[in-house]
Amino acid sequence: MAEGIKLALVGATGAVGQEMLKIMEERKLKINELVCLADPREAGSKVKFAGEDLTVRAASNDAFKWADVAMFAVGTDISKQLIPEAVANDCVAIDNSYAFRLDDNVPLVVPEVNPEDVDWHKGIIANPNCSTIIMVVAINPIHQAAGLKRVIVSTYQAVSGAGKAGLDELDQHVKAHIDGIQPVLEVFQHPIAFNLIPHIDVFVEEDYTREEMKMVWETRKIMHAPDLKIAATAVRVPVYRSHSESINLETEKPLSVTQAREILSQAPGIIVQDDPQNNHYPMPLFTSNSDEVFVGRIRRDISTDNGLAIWIAADQIRKGAATNAIQIAELIVEKNLY
Amino acid sequence: MAEGIKLALVGATGAVGQEMLKIMEERKLKINELVCLADPREAGSKVKFAGEDLTVRAASNDAFKWADVAMFAVGTDISKQLIPEAVANDCVAIDNSYAFRLDDNVPLVVPEVNPEDVDWHKGIIANPNCSTIIMVVAINPIHQAAGLKRVIVSTYQAVSGAGKAGLDELDQHVKAHIDGIQPVLEVFQHPIAFNLIPHIDVFVEEDYTREEMKMVWETRKIMHAPDLKIAATAVRVPVYRSHSESINLETEKPLSVTQAREILSQAPGIIVQDDPQNNHYPMPLFTSNSDEVFVGRIRRDISTDNGLAIWIAADQIRKGAATNAIQIAELIVEKNLY
Repeated sequence: MAEGIKLALVGATGAVGQEMLKIMEERKLKINELVCLADPREAGSKVKFAGEDLTVRAASNDAFKWADVAMFAVGTDISKQLIPEAVANDCVAIDNSYAFRLDDNVPLVVPEVNPEDVDWHKGIIANPNCSTIIMVVAINPIHQAAGLKRVIVSTYQAVSGAGKAGLDELDQHVKAHIDGIQPVLEVFQHPIAFNLIPHIDVFVEEDYTREEMKMVWETRKIMHAPDLKIAATAVRVPVYRSHSESINLETEKPLSVTQAREILSQAPGIIVQDDPQNNHYPMPLFTSNSDEVFVGRIRRDISTDNGLAIWIAADQIRKGAATNAIQIAELIVEKNLY
Repeated sequence: MAEGIKLALVGATGAVGQEMLKIMEERKLKINELVCLADPREAGSKVKFAGEDLTVRAASNDAFKWADVAMFAVGTDISKQLIPEAVANDCVAIDNSYAFRLDDNVPLVVPEVNPEDVDWHKGIIANPNCSTIIMVVAINPIHQAAGLKRVIVSTYQAVSGAGKAGLDELDQHVKAHIDGIQPVLEVFQHPIAFNLIPHIDVFVEEDYTREEMKMVWETRKIMHAPDLKIAATAVRVPVYRSHSESINLETEKPLSVTQAREILSQAPGIIVQDDPQNNHYPMPLFTSNSDEVFVGRIRRDISTDNGLAIWIAADQIRKGAATNAIQIAELIVEKNLY
């Protein structure tokens, strides 16, 4: 560690926090010094970073006074409680929770889509919802080229969206199924092994879930498209850690499938995997541990004029959370915005 | 067995054939006598029906001469070969395969939707694709009430769509995953445990699969809606035997969510399961071994005027195949069309 930021990582022991540590190292985020913070009950435990064991401390104002930037990989309630303290201590907060995402004073950033929004931050930058991040990386290039009018998306979301507990619960439910015993429900509302649950987060308005409405509200904010029409159906599936989405798009201007494929191939953060005759298309089992959004099944939506259909998959813990947050930190460092 | 039809069941030993035997018994199909047929290699084996062991015979013209009605639960190639022989011997064929579905001389029937089409049969009645059957039961009542203009559907299809071999392959892939060994690929193009495969049947036109195009072609024929706009994305999921679908509908006339829920509640073959605040919605693990299509998550499609979104699940082997075929046989008996 040499020149760079003094960084505090809050929630260092969780699934996203652990992944952030890996990705900071892989991407060589310019860190002068790193302090790992967590709940006081976890103070004293160790986490690995760049071959060293770091001791986890309880989050405190002293840490925020010291740090240039703090990454928050904790739940909404803890973010709401700690982030004002970080900001009051002149520490830039990058928040993975839902707490500040829709606040007009807080930029909501996907670096491939709206990197310029970090420039006007007032102390907090929000990291979007995982399904939303993955979708906007794939649809923004189409929006830039032909103007999006409408998006219909059905998701196929991995259990990692519910953190390490979600991963463990899928394991436990598979085992219960094999042993012929009742699965224990702790994280999910219903058994998830060999099942689908069309219910993620709580129901909020017009019988849409908050997960579905996040894909509406957050996409509009990130893409600066307040009038974009979006309808989502969010479904939990028995897959470990990559989310997939079936997306139907309507554009203002016509765009051929060839043009769309070309545009997506050249867009940042995307790997086009679209050779159906050779059985190549994105699949969640093979997109995990990657930072890109995989896009395939690119074809005309034959039910409308100026329509496209695509199928995408991306690692929910990485690009859907940790990688995107680290990319925001990189922008902060590059642009000297701390 | 008393008054009723002389029935031949071709493919009695397969997953769908076995289910047909169960359902004939449950629904008390009026059978005078039943003969079970299969591939010559399976002749001599036994199948259970109504507590009796029936000996399977090789399919033959003699059997078709004897039978009033023959149900075909075999692949497209065998249907193409045997059904002309059945028809030539004055035996009415109910075919579960794809062979004759789009033939203008063959009615394609879902009894809840177009029972009147059995009246004009010329010897063959086709049983539709499983994903299509399930969808039309759910969307036809909306079409009757408000006129459908456009359907966008993303499927979540169980491995039973690939027969008993598909069920066995999911088991084998789950075991391989747990044991940390490579899964053997026999039925599916890729591992299916903890994965999603956006590829069912072969790619046919504009990079759509035949499974996706069946949902277009067959839906239009069954619903007598040749201009209905439909786009489908068909995805295999690690679920055993119920298919699920996320469907977005656009109607000519406005229809409130309350009206739609009421219409669906009174429609034949549907169970509305739509109480999201109490975590009630259709899920494939709980709709298996039922004959109804379960419909829930009924809500406005907030991305368009006159739009509705629904989520459905139904047993692919039963309503998606065997039950629908037996219901067609019931119509043949009731209407004395043999």
